[in-house]
Formats: sequence, C-alpha cells, structure tokens
Amino acid sequence: MMIAKYVQKLEAYTPGEQPKLKSVVKLNTNENPYPPSPRCAQVLKNFDLDKLRRYPDPVFAELREALAKLNGTKAENIFVGNGSDEILSVAARAFVEDDEKIGSLDPSYSLYKTLADIRNVPWVGIDTAEAEKPKMELRDKKVSLFLWTNPNAPTGVFAPEKKIKAFAKAFSGVVIVDEAYADFAKENSMALAVKRGNRNVIVMRTFSKSYSLAGLRVGYCVGPKDLIDAMYKVKDSYNVDAVAQAIALAAVKDQKWMLRNVARVVKERAKLTKELQNRGWDVMPSESNFLFARPPKGNAKEIFENLKSKNVFVRYFPSSPKTSDRIRITVGTCDEMKALLAAIDF
Amino acid sequence: MMIAKYVQKLEAYTPGEQPKLKSVVKLNTNENPYPPSPRCAQVLKNFDLDKLRRYPDPVFAELREALAKLNGTKAENIFVGNGSDEILSVAARAFVEDDEKIGSLDPSYSLYKTLADIRNVPWVGIDTAEAEKPKMELRDKKVSLFLWTNPNAPTGVFAPEKKIKAFAKAFSGVVIVDEAYADFAKENSMALAVKRGNRNVIVMRTFSKSYSLAGLRVGYCVGPKDLIDAMYKVKDSYNVDAVAQAIALAAVKDQKWMLRNVARVVKERAKLTKELQNRGWDVMPSESNFLFARPPKGNAKEIFENLKSKNVFVRYFPSSPKTSDRIRITVGTCDEMKALLAAIDF
Repeated sequence: MMIAKYVQKLEAYTPGEQPKLKSVVKLNTNENPYPPSPRCAQVLKNFDLDKLRRYPDPVFAELREALAKLNGTKAENIFVGNGSDEILSVAARAFVEDDEKIGSLDPSYSLYKTLADIRNVPWVGIDTAEAEKPKMELRDKKVSLFLWTNPNAPTGVFAPEKKIKAFAKAFSGVVIVDEAYADFAKENSMALAVKRGNRNVIVMRTFSKSYSLAGLRVGYCVGPKDLIDAMYKVKDSYNVDAVAQAIALAAVKDQKWMLRNVARVVKERAKLTKELQNRGWDVMPSESNFLFARPPKGNAKEIFENLKSKNVFVRYFPSSPKTSDRIRITVGTCDEMKALLAAIDF
Repeated sequence: MMIAKYVQKLEAYTPGEQPKLKSVVKLNTNENPYPPSPRCAQVLKNFDLDKLRRYPDPVFAELREALAKLNGTKAENIFVGNGSDEILSVAARAFVEDDEKIGSLDPSYSLYKTLADIRNVPWVGIDTAEAEKPKMELRDKKVSLFLWTNPNAPTGVFAPEKKIKAFAKAFSGVVIVDEAYADFAKENSMALAVKRGNRNVIVMRTFSKSYSLAGLRVGYCVGPKDLIDAMYKVKDSYNVDAVAQAIALAAVKDQKWMLRNVARVVKERAKLTKELQNRGWDVMPSESNFLFARPPKGNAKEIFENLKSKNVFVRYFPSSPKTSDRIRITVGTCDEMKALLAAIDF
C-alpha cells in the first residue's frame, strides 16, 4: 500500500468551525476580540518586497533575541514554530521514540491525542485530579513527552508553578507546559524554563491569543539548550515566513497594547462568570480567555445548537463524559457578551 | 535519554547562506531577481487586520480553487504546505513506513537526504543516468517514496515526461515530481498528476522561485485524491497562515507578471551560458533558473571562495565528487550577471 498503515487509520483533527459570515458572534476558537497592535498593521503597510523575494532567516535571529529579552533568557534557549502546532509536532519527533508514548492531562486540548496518532504512538491521559501523583503511573506507561496546558483547556483551570515543578522533577521525560493562555492568568511557569539547571521543562507560548495573531501562525518555546537544539535539527529549513517574523517582532515590542487587551478580556471574564452564575450555571474558575460552563440542566448540546441557530458560535466537546455537559465560551467584547447572554436568555 | 536516539545522530540541513548585506550579488539560493507581482504588494497594504486576529482557513479553500483552475484539476486534488519543505515532510510521514526508504536522484536537492534522516529511514540515491531503469533496484531497496526533481537541482537538467511516466508505472510507491523550477522549463509533467487513472504521481510546485515569493513559504502539490487526503490527515491544523494564503492567491491570479519575469530569466540564462562557455566552462544544459558549471581547471572551490571574497555569492557542494568540481549559479538580472562575469574575469 502506498499510504502508511497508521495514516489509513487516522482521523483528522477537527478544528473549531470558522464561519464565513462576518456577522456571527464568534466565541468558539478562543481568538482575541481586539485587533493586534497597530505596529503590526504598519509592518504590513511598509513591508519591503525584497524580503518576500528572498528566503527568510531560517533561525529568526531578531525575533529570538526579542523573545529572549522578554523572558529573561538567551536566544539559544528559544525555538519558534509555524504556530504552536508545529512546535508540538517537532517535539513529538524530537523527544519520543517509536516505542514510547505521549501524555497529557485529561480533559485537555483535544489536538494532543491527534498529535500522538500522527506520531503513531499511544496517547495517555491523566485525570486532572491525579496530576499531582503521576510519577509511577507515567513511568509504567513509557511516557516520554508530557503536555501540560496551563491554564488548561477547555476547563480554564490554573495549576500553580510548584505543582508543575514537582511533577517535572519526578518525571524522566520532557514536560511541555503549553502556556497559550498564560497572559490571561495571574501567574505562569516561565521561571521553571529559564532557571539554571532546568533539565526537562519547556514552556510554550503563542501569538494567537493574547497578541491577537491567530491568523499568522507563530508560537515559540523556551527551554534547556540541548532540547532546543534537538528541535532545530528536526524542523523544516525555513519554517517561519518573513512576514510572520516581522509582524511577531512588532507585536513583542508593543507589550503595552497586548497587556491592555488582556486586561479588558479579564474584566469581561469576571463579568460573564457572574452573569452565568446568576443564571444558575456552574462556571469553572478560569485564568484564560474562555469559560467552561455547565448550564443548570446540563443540556450543553441543546444550548450549543440553539446558540448556533442564532449565529452565536461557542464550542462543544461531545466525545467525553468529562466535557459533554459543558460548553466552552471565548470571552469577547462587552457587546459580544451581551449578545451571548441575550441569546441564552431568549 | 530525553532526546530521541536518531535525533542525537542527526546533522541539521545547511541551507544556502543568507548574507545580511544588501550590497552583495546573491546568486546562491535560486531566488528570483525580480520582485513579486504588484498585486502581492497591494494585498499587504490593504490586509484586513481581522484576518490576523482570527485563525486562517485550515484548508485554504480559495487558494486551492485557484490552483485547481490553473492546473486543470479539482480542489480535492490540491494540497498546500508551509513551503515545499512541509509538503516533503508530510509526504515522508504519509507514504513511508518505518521499515521503508526514501529515494531520489543522485545528485539532487541535498535536503532529501536530510528529510530521510529526520524521518529516520534510509535514503537511497539513484545515479541520474540510471533513472530509466530503477524498477528492480528500488523494489529491492524497499523505497516507497521517490523524489524526482525536474528540472533537477543542482544540475538544472530536464527529464521528459515520458521518462517519468515510465518510471512511475514501474514503481510501486509514490513518486513526487518536485517541479520547483518547472516554470523556467520548456515542458513539465503536470499532465501526469491530473490525468484520470493516475495512481502514484504527485507533482509539486512552489511560489519561491517563479513567483518571487521565497520569503513567504508556500508550496503546493497535485495528485490522486486518496494520496492528497492522506496528506491532509498528517499536516498541522493551520499550516498556512492568512497572509501567505492571500498573497499566494494574488500571485496565482497574475500569471502575466510571473511569465514575464520567467522570460527575462530564461533570456539571461542563455546569455550567461554562452559567456561561460566562451571562457571554457562546461555548462550543463539548464531548464531552470540556475546553471551548474565546471570551470576550465575544475577548481570550483577556489572560484567559489574567490567570488565570495568579492561579495558574489554562488553555491558550492563539496560533499560528493559528482558535484565538487562545479558551482551552481542562480541566474540573476543582467547587471548581476555582468558583476559575476567581472568577478570571474578579474
């Protein structure tokens, strides 16, 4: 057969729906409701066409320097990918032998299982409640790469640094702390990644959420030099295009803009939490830009479909009993939240 | 160990040097000397920031439609990647089992061996002269994916469609015809890919060369639906960013611009061939945007270094006796070719 056997068995990952209509209230893929920094717009407007004609910097030196400075580390500790997706895919090849496994919290980002499928190794989910004592369990299961989303998705729940630190210390493989939503949280675990003597912790960030650049596909990670070096060996030669490098750099240099938008989202998050609770919903404590909430009757599917019929898109995860009684709502603008609540109340 | 054993042994692929100075004559990575279509510049200038904020179309529907139309096929037969690099990497996962091998012509694009190394399978090179009778040889060697660059790199030599057709017919695996340089050639093999009943031929194109968009990272391929479907299963969720999709689309829609630049390169190619021949160089017949040429004394390395000292960058491949007596020169503008010849003559 021409198609590899494991690929024949694969089911493709289903990303959240991207409706074409501009008029919908789109709260299903955790995009930022506010535009990226005006400096990004300037980069687009003034882009030197010669940079399109030539190959991009294969190791994105300028962007790495800026990211190293931002995080208090060295450029040699930074890897940049075509979205965090590519970083995960590169890590799955760099840190996992064919007879090993990939682990993550359960529930967590649904892509992780697909990632393991594509890497053709088993995926092991650790119940979130058990994540403090995974040492033996993971050793038994030959897990060599563990993906810890923090704040977690789709729950929004946050784990303190000391919990992740204890986990990493006991774990023989590589831990990637997927901090896609960390800018919306009160704390993060970057200190673990940049600390001298760090052996196995990689912290991953994305430009898709807090920087409002999901369309651009830029993620990065910070970790020990030997692990980062291994990732460079496995990546495609020119994995981040010239436009993406330039726009991401502009966004990094405008922290003020990003932080202002984050503050607005955090404010709306608190308001929406309260509004839903007033309506009898159970809302998990969120440190991210979304809420994972259970309607009073637990009829999440019905509400999901009802909202969709009113052009309000949220996310529903039917595949596990751990997620199927809740919907995940991206925190949007004040107006979007009003529209959501109006649709729920109708 | 945390880093996979095969990765520890990997040597990273060395892309052609990207000198920072704008004043150099850069003839080392086969970039187009002319800028991309002004329509690409317009896309950048008028880019809707909302498209940066939101995730891009994961299956690039509009771009696929345009590419299908251009090549006389259906959107379902088109896959688009973050550069041809990603397409190759996806193919290496989709079409190769762990105990199989990846083949290519030898000499050919030096990335192919790295690709096999990263996929952790052996690479098998078939002497270019033998490529007409590879049937038995490849079966013996369990090659399940064969990469045929046409026109070939670094030689520039062209293989007629019937040769590739015969090869594919006899071959049990998947053949990817890497037509990165096809727009500079008198013919191409796209007909094999779009033909009804095509079982195993995928033709790959890039925006990096003829469309002057190396900085953007967009490649695409055309092939049988079942093979294309397998590639979609293996790719990252959002592998081509929103800006890249929009610029590539604009470039596709301006065929006139691309064809005009190609004609200029082809004209300079003929002139440079003659100039080098007049100086006693052996120039392989090129159907691409570069020449692979042997200086009269075979002192390619010396000439390469001498040119570099004069800020004229060409490419030298020392690793094989099949390539080490020649240099590869990208065909540039008339002025660049004059500067090259002046540096050679000095």
